Amino acid sequence: MKWLQTDEADFESRLSVLLADRSAVETSVAAPVRDIIAAVRAQGDTALCDYTTRFDRLALSPDTLRISADEIAREADKVDAELMDALTLAASRIESFHRAQMPANLSYTDEAGLTLGMRWIPLDAVGLYVPGGKAAYPSSVLMNALPARVAGVGRIAMCVPCPDGVLNPLVLAAARVCGVSEIYRVGGAQAVAALAYGTPTIRPVDRIVGPGNAYVAEAKRQVFGHVGIDSIAGPSEVVIVADNRNEPRFVALDLLAQAEHDELAQAVLITDDAAFARRVVEAVETELKTLPRAAIAGKSWADHGAVVIVDNWQEAAAIANRFASEHLEVMLEEPESFAAMIRHAGATFLGRNCPEAVGDYVGGPNHVLPTSRTARFASGLSVFDFLKRTTTIAADANGLRAVGPAGARLARAEGLHAHALSLSARLDALG
Amino acid sequence: MKWLQTDEADFESRLSVLLADRSAVETSVAAPVRDIIAAVRAQGDTALCDYTTRFDRLALSPDTLRISADEIAREADKVDAELMDALTLAASRIESFHRAQMPANLSYTDEAGLTLGMRWIPLDAVGLYVPGGKAAYPSSVLMNALPARVAGVGRIAMCVPCPDGVLNPLVLAAARVCGVSEIYRVGGAQAVAALAYGTPTIRPVDRIVGPGNAYVAEAKRQVFGHVGIDSIAGPSEVVIVADNRNEPRFVALDLLAQAEHDELAQAVLITDDAAFARRVVEAVETELKTLPRAAIAGKSWADHGAVVIVDNWQEAAAIANRFASEHLEVMLEEPESFAAMIRHAGATFLGRNCPEAVGDYVGGPNHVLPTSRTARFASGLSVFDFLKRTTTIAADANGLRAVGPAGARLARAEGLHAHALSLSARLDALG
Repeated sequence: MKWLQTDEADFESRLSVLLADRSAVETSVAAPVRDIIAAVRAQGDTALCDYTTRFDRLALSPDTLRISADEIAREADKVDAELMDALTLAASRIESFHRAQMPANLSYTDEAGLTLGMRWIPLDAVGLYVPGGKAAYPSSVLMNALPARVAGVGRIAMCVPCPDGVLNPLVLAAARVCGVSEIYRVGGAQAVAALAYGTPTIRPVDRIVGPGNAYVAEAKRQVFGHVGIDSIAGPSEVVIVADNRNEPRFVALDLLAQAEHDELAQAVLITDDAAFARRVVEAVETELKTLPRAAIAGKSWADHGAVVIVDNWQEAAAIANRFASEHLEVMLEEPESFAAMIRHAGATFLGRNCPEAVGDYVGGPNHVLPTSRTARFASGLSVFDFLKRTTTIAADANGLRAVGPAGARLARAEGLHAHALSLSARLDALG
Repeated sequence: MKWLQTDEADFESRLSVLLADRSAVETSVAAPVRDIIAAVRAQGDTALCDYTTRFDRLALSPDTLRISADEIAREADKVDAELMDALTLAASRIESFHRAQMPANLSYTDEAGLTLGMRWIPLDAVGLYVPGGKAAYPSSVLMNALPARVAGVGRIAMCVPCPDGVLNPLVLAAARVCGVSEIYRVGGAQAVAALAYGTPTIRPVDRIVGPGNAYVAEAKRQVFGHVGIDSIAGPSEVVIVADNRNEPRFVALDLLAQAEHDELAQAVLITDDAAFARRVVEAVETELKTLPRAAIAGKSWADHGAVVIVDNWQEAAAIANRFASEHLEVMLEEPESFAAMIRHAGATFLGRNCPEAVGDYVGGPNHVLPTSRTARFASGLSVFDFLKRTTTIAADANGLRAVGPAGARLARAEGLHAHALSLSARLDALG
């Protein structure tokens, strides 16, 4: 853990180390992924089944690629009632927030007599990738599927790897809560290839979302352009701005909730009271003694954790904006006035009783958020990822008379004479 | 030009040829672009000046990288008054439409007592790339800069290559109309690198937009993630749906307005009357005899142009949706009812007097649009490209009591115990 103070001479240089990219340096998997995509495009289901045998030790035929309705029901029914209630509450809150997010169409006739419009249209089909094994989080299924559903996407196809054929009851229960019933037990680059280009069994989609390992991320990069993709997530991060009126243990637990995700995760406390910060750091050490994921959380805190001591909250806001962090907790007396100074954050959590974990599950806003300082220009997942806009212009003779001559003049200036003629020939005919 | 009829047996296979990707197969410029970016990151302005000497035959120093206010004024003043009026009209219409597009923030308190919000925030700084030479279109400056300005972006930095030191009066006039005064006479991958990473003279931006050659496109791909980029545009296209009550010459000119952009452009007529289509084809041939850009337009029409004869307008709409074209003209008696059947189009032009060229210059909606069938999932440039969203959750003790237990249960099910504790420790303290 690093300890910084804004009143120290080397603050800027030490801050820039903290702001540096934490992404793992990965050996390139571009070549094997290219081969997998080519094989799936050429051989369709056969390639999908072959790769699944090889990578997931699971023999499939085109008939068993899809998880049947019976299997989904059988697995989902294994989830206990209390957990099912929690999933349902989460889904209902996520759905409500994303429904509130839905944008309105635009249409108006202006003084020149042109009618201008903009219409939001849901994508026809979306592919949702869900990682297998330990990273198969049911909450991610909700956060990816529900915005698509609310946007009005007609078809949501899910791919989830099932190593050794083992199905994940919670993931299938989450899918059922979201009304997703088209689920294939394939993963990796081969699943992304199937969703992008289609096979006899899996029809192609228009956009692929959801997290995955390095092969999945590279496959999404390679199919991008043919279909849309979401952003490639980096390691997670939180900045917590807290005064000394907070319970140090709560702040420590919030820091550790971030750190337990990943050794590359970053948890940062910004406060104006060094003594309070020391109590938080002690509480972190105490909790690490009993935390199940202490190995991961401890390494994240040691390597990337930080405490920043500021003189005042204006300074804290400026530093939080520099971090442009995925998550920002504001544990101050008047969190809203602090939040008004924030320009860059994926999601903000206001108040002493609003840990980031609220937003991971049951808050309502999406938990798929921009990492690695990309909140400077990027946003969390939303209904906007599953809608596209088309604009319309309607002009009658008078409208064309109002704007056509200027258009023809600009077209000629740009050397585009057919453009100019398409306007001026009509204007001539109208007289 | 291909002639297709939906009532012929080989229609589907011939249509899929038309729908195939027309992007030019480019030799990869990844390696030289990587070198250029590395040099600009290491040597800053020195590398920028060296590359500009080499590629643009223009000797610069850090002091002359930026085009001065005097130079902008002197060049822009060369534009004649009528053309200046046309630029101003175009700018005012584009600005109005994008202002209407601005989204509203969201904030509400729900029945659980949580206050949920979503705030749209403009990017701090945007880089606008403007190609040099013949592709330096003033209309593109308006279409890229004005949405950024309307969104509230604080700083817009423009880069435009000036081979042999020649400045383009129209481009500088367009920049002045948009209030863009930070303009550098550098281009290519080196300009993109400078905008992404900054040099002593050019401060870095958060997102880079605007068209460019293969080096510029590759440089944008390589800096993506560190900054945001817009989509990489493919060759342009139009689908025109027209009945036989249209003047064939107008339809022909609209097809040619698309074809004159690029030999890879695609212009398609869909109609229900083969005799009318033949008259349009004849008019295309006639216009090609006198059109200044006949060589380009003729090759585009020969290689990629098409006429599709349909039985009815429902069939026409289905085929237009398959094309998911950048531009769609609807020259029918009731264009709105046809447009209601369209799910995939970058921009739609309604009526016999609304050629696509209206939208290129003076309509108001943006002319930077998704190409190559990406309108299935992508949208035209807009204020949304220059805004990002941050969501907020505010919870007090009662809010946490309402949703916290479900959150803790889900966190435990996912094996994330610090997440669960961050909720349950507070709930325990609240009692």
